[in-house]
Amino acid sequence: MKRKLGIIGAGRMGKVFAHHLSLDARLAVVETIADKNADKAAGVANLYGIPSSCDDYRDIIGRADIDAVIVAAPTSVHVEIIVAAARAGKHIFCEKPLALSVAECRRALEAVQAAGVKLQIGYMRRYDHAYAAAKQKIDAGVIGKPVLFKSTSRDPRRTDLNYAKRSNSGGLILDMGVHDFDLAQWLMGDRVVRAHSEGECLVFPELAGVGDIDNATVNLKFAGGGVGCIDLSRNAVYGYDIRTEVLGAEGSLQIGYLQQTQVLTLVRDGVVHDTVPYFMERFGDAYAAEIRDFVACVTEARQPESDGPNALCVTAIGQAATLSLDEQRPVEVAEVLAGPA
Amino acid sequence: MKRKLGIIGAGRMGKVFAHHLSLDARLAVVETIADKNADKAAGVANLYGIPSSCDDYRDIIGRADIDAVIVAAPTSVHVEIIVAAARAGKHIFCEKPLALSVAECRRALEAVQAAGVKLQIGYMRRYDHAYAAAKQKIDAGVIGKPVLFKSTSRDPRRTDLNYAKRSNSGGLILDMGVHDFDLAQWLMGDRVVRAHSEGECLVFPELAGVGDIDNATVNLKFAGGGVGCIDLSRNAVYGYDIRTEVLGAEGSLQIGYLQQTQVLTLVRDGVVHDTVPYFMERFGDAYAAEIRDFVACVTEARQPESDGPNALCVTAIGQAATLSLDEQRPVEVAEVLAGPA
Amino acid sequence: MKRKLGIIGAGRMGKVFAHHLSLDARLAVVETIADKNADKAAGVANLYGIPSSCDDYRDIIGRADIDAVIVAAPTSVHVEIIVAAARAGKHIFCEKPLALSVAECRRALEAVQAAGVKLQIGYMRRYDHAYAAAKQKIDAGVIGKPVLFKSTSRDPRRTDLNYAKRSNSGGLILDMGVHDFDLAQWLMGDRVVRAHSEGECLVFPELAGVGDIDNATVNLKFAGGGVGCIDLSRNAVYGYDIRTEVLGAEGSLQIGYLQQTQVLTLVRDGVVHDTVPYFMERFGDAYAAEIRDFVACVTEARQPESDGPNALCVTAIGQAATLSLDEQRPVEVAEVLAGPA
Amino acid sequence: MKRKLGIIGAGRMGKVFAHHLSLDARLAVVETIADKNADKAAGVANLYGIPSSCDDYRDIIGRADIDAVIVAAPTSVHVEIIVAAARAGKHIFCEKPLALSVAECRRALEAVQAAGVKLQIGYMRRYDHAYAAAKQKIDAGVIGKPVLFKSTSRDPRRTDLNYAKRSNSGGLILDMGVHDFDLAQWLMGDRVVRAHSEGECLVFPELAGVGDIDNATVNLKFAGGGVGCIDLSRNAVYGYDIRTEVLGAEGSLQIGYLQQTQVLTLVRDGVVHDTVPYFMERFGDAYAAEIRDFVACVTEARQPESDGPNALCVTAIGQAATLSLDEQRPVEVAEVLAGPA
Repeated sequence: MKRKLGIIGAGRMGKVFAHHLSLDARLAVVETIADKNADKAAGVANLYGIPSSCDDYRDIIGRADIDAVIVAAPTSVHVEIIVAAARAGKHIFCEKPLALSVAECRRALEAVQAAGVKLQIGYMRRYDHAYAAAKQKIDAGVIGKPVLFKSTSRDPRRTDLNYAKRSNSGGLILDMGVHDFDLAQWLMGDRVVRAHSEGECLVFPELAGVGDIDNATVNLKFAGGGVGCIDLSRNAVYGYDIRTEVLGAEGSLQIGYLQQTQVLTLVRDGVVHDTVPYFMERFGDAYAAEIRDFVACVTEARQPESDGPNALCVTAIGQAATLSLDEQRPVEVAEVLAGPA
Repeated sequence: MKRKLGIIGAGRMGKVFAHHLSLDARLAVVETIADKNADKAAGVANLYGIPSSCDDYRDIIGRADIDAVIVAAPTSVHVEIIVAAARAGKHIFCEKPLALSVAECRRALEAVQAAGVKLQIGYMRRYDHAYAAAKQKIDAGVIGKPVLFKSTSRDPRRTDLNYAKRSNSGGLILDMGVHDFDLAQWLMGDRVVRAHSEGECLVFPELAGVGDIDNATVNLKFAGGGVGCIDLSRNAVYGYDIRTEVLGAEGSLQIGYLQQTQVLTLVRDGVVHDTVPYFMERFGDAYAAEIRDFVACVTEARQPESDGPNALCVTAIGQAATLSLDEQRPVEVAEVLAGPA
Repeated sequence: MKRKLGIIGAGRMGKVFAHHLSLDARLAVVETIADKNADKAAGVANLYGIPSSCDDYRDIIGRADIDAVIVAAPTSVHVEIIVAAARAGKHIFCEKPLALSVAECRRALEAVQAAGVKLQIGYMRRYDHAYAAAKQKIDAGVIGKPVLFKSTSRDPRRTDLNYAKRSNSGGLILDMGVHDFDLAQWLMGDRVVRAHSEGECLVFPELAGVGDIDNATVNLKFAGGGVGCIDLSRNAVYGYDIRTEVLGAEGSLQIGYLQQTQVLTLVRDGVVHDTVPYFMERFGDAYAAEIRDFVACVTEARQPESDGPNALCVTAIGQAATLSLDEQRPVEVAEVLAGPA
Repeated sequence: MKRKLGIIGAGRMGKVFAHHLSLDARLAVVETIADKNADKAAGVANLYGIPSSCDDYRDIIGRADIDAVIVAAPTSVHVEIIVAAARAGKHIFCEKPLALSVAECRRALEAVQAAGVKLQIGYMRRYDHAYAAAKQKIDAGVIGKPVLFKSTSRDPRRTDLNYAKRSNSGGLILDMGVHDFDLAQWLMGDRVVRAHSEGECLVFPELAGVGDIDNATVNLKFAGGGVGCIDLSRNAVYGYDIRTEVLGAEGSLQIGYLQQTQVLTLVRDGVVHDTVPYFMERFGDAYAAEIRDFVACVTEARQPESDGPNALCVTAIGQAATLSLDEQRPVEVAEVLAGPA
């Protein structure tokens, strides 16, 4: 029997999931979509043939026929929605990050655990062909013991100023870096224990006005001794630039690419190619794969790999790295996990 | 109102189109599928939720509710099916090549023209992002007047021996080269007027047994003076290798790629990456785009770009290039077009 | 004891050899340089510390202390100089091509053979790191039996009009193609037996005025059945573009590169890198290596690999390919070798 | 008049400079070479035609006819030699790093300043074509204001254990990182003000035995707010891996390469190419260029760009980064410059 899904949030990511779920209706169908902006919800419903829409996510959670919800609402309301959905016995897919603080994450996980529902967090890079192939190679021992992690996440443009606020996105390091922190632990097969950040607002002064920065580097230390560095930027005007390296005792892996369309133009000025425009072009297939996998997890009563405890840990690293920036000192992840935060 | 489609042929390509059409049912739905092997037809119907299947394409053509047919049957029966479909007033999408001889192509085109139906031939490379971008750049004058065309088509393995026969596939040059001949005229914006081929059976002696070769090079001359060369091979054991260059008076374009998954593995033996496995991985998106465009042409009463007259011309080049191999002389395309062939 | 060398010709290539020989004086020193233009000879002599210069190559050949000569004079006088030098017992390094016709080549080889001197022809690509590595891999069986040869030689600009004349350079196919013809036989380990050319003057009409073309493609057939295609152009405005592929039964090799300086510039317009400016940047190391190897051959009484008989054969292919262009038919190399030419 | 040079140190780098100076004797000649191991000095002298050799560098400094010395002795004796050479009025080229501590650097600079001689430090990467081109592009404004620096230096194998000791090489961060610290300031056009390091001995336990590590990441903060991260490793078993990126407000530059020989091998296992073996292959041209430039500086009475004050600053960053590793806190460069160190 097909599972029935509800989508909460009709913004950019809500649309992405509506799109991908509409293309493969073998296991599940989207029955309804909610957004505080009722017109937005109705618009997406119409576009993807979703039977109903509403302006209050509680209407979805209240429906007995809904098996699972896709949470694509702002991060600040993730936990409230997860708690409500879990109590109603719905399985939950939630966009990254789970929440902006360890305390918030814990509140969500407790509700999920008490209800015994499934929770998957949208760390979609794990579903990208290249990252997945790298993980397989590492697990197969191709590069020996991983010892050094290096990752780049650069956006082609400044984020929305309201979104940039700490209370909404968590700021640059949490907002962008969580993907790299998740990859760091997943690919290295180890826990991050310490983070040290440097960062500054250098290109978009208006970001400083809302308390954010636009460039940062983060040093990581792993439990097993491994080291890492991550660079984050909002001003990669040339394109969306996501690249990762894992160096091991017996070799190295480089993941990612710069060229979107496979045409080289050779003219008097040199050889030119295009770049990756943005995350939808880069990770479109990965978004489709992760949401299919969530549906499969629900259908097969299988536990998602990108689960709640992992997401809590990733948020903890992000919180530590952000605290490091604020206090100009390396911060132990354990401090954040123990602290009142 | 949604168009109703029938697919004729439940082999590799029939499945490809069933798959892509099942993913986007906004404009058209596949109502039925035929294959001489009734079980195969039923299997694909079941896989993609096609309501009915049959073992005789005439059952599809006889249905009044069917608007258009997708011809994915062997090339040797293309013309027979096209003539029947056209007479029944169905629009037609037909896999490449239209037919193996100019005479056969003409028979199909006459029926199509008399019926006033649309006919699109599956030269899907035109729908590949990279080839499409190259075409746009050429039309925009980025490389000036195109003067030299160069293209590679290499299969990772030997074709089926029965398929390799001249009467079935037309032989290596026609079977593989038609894509390059189509690109040659499309990208150069000019007609090919002469072809000279060299070829031999060098790696798979069993191909010689059925009258085919496994490696060939073809020299091309264009009406406007441009020159071209194409190399074809069945023994690219490293992968499916499709690359094209167009050199103009002001620059050059290189289209295609060798690396499928964006992971570099750096080990003691060197830097390694994977290759493109086969045509489905390389041109999956292009197949989807071409069949969507066919549906759009039917819906919008628009003429397909990859039409019958073009396909006849492409077959004529293939016939000339094959005759050149047989008679060891350059052959004018006009000779083939004029001849009794 | 150090060998004493004389350079004949103080043009572009004469300077190249003077430069490289001046950098490594362990085995040989350049004692003198000749050029019809005495000022040019004196200028190069001054630049590289060569003790004397003259305006008549016979003055060099007449010197008893000179062991060997470097012939960097126009192709049209190669044979005259070689015959004189051989008769005087000098070893000879001669720029490519040996001569423009098989008959001329034979005249040179007879004199060389009669005198028992060494003769090396400047097919420097064999000394390029990449081409040399490819040759080694083929010989080691990495790609199995070679079956298909593909090569590109493109100049970034039009040649001098006087030089372009058939009587001086042999025309586009002979002038540029001889490098590819030499590589074809060397890398495939086989003889070319037939050539078919298409060509036209498309970009520089003034070349047509002196009987030359600017773009050509050449089909090759090898004795063992292998096939090949070469494309040549004078209008690669983006740079000096030299690339070669050899496809074998078990794999393929791609030799060459497009990027000169290892900097990628990523800006709003895309990713950009530079190209190879010209042959000196591309083959500077190869010129140095070939002339060092010639000196070593003389010193160690070893026979050069790029010898006279090979050069005769390469000229024969070039002559056949040029005849093919003139008469629009495939031409057997044997016809040229047998003919009155 | 040609300058007369003496080389101090006949190890790996002494040989490199002897080699390059022997190839271009227009402006300067190497008259003598010293090494504590007299046989080594004699061997190199013999190999490159250097007239004399000795086992005490003071013999060179004592010679009135020597204009300048090349210091390629162990870092621990750099200052002693520089002070003696400066007092004797010799110009000095010294391998990097100038010294392992700010205090030592100051001692050398005082002597150099007092004597008014020229001092160039061997930060050869500045002379590499790619790095030099990047610098030019940055200065030309191609990427706007530089905001983020990222650099990788990885050795293909473990260093000698004695050399690895802090007292000899300064340890991993100082030994390898100084090149990146120099590039950081040169390319960003700004001073590094703070460093934070993570590091560990993960692959070669024997390094821990002598107090060294094999992998490290270093976060940098620049005076103007820019950020940076550097990763260093001794276990890049795949090759010598040197790459740098500079991200600016208007674009980015990527410098470096992985492929040494321009041959791609395409076989069943994938596409393979070689890597850069070691620093001599990667920076051979840069070593030649820097030593030529030093000779030119001496000849033209021009001040070297890679001078003493810069080298002191680079050592200070290295010292701060090393202190950060030891004390697990970010360290201000000013602290090191002010401190007793």
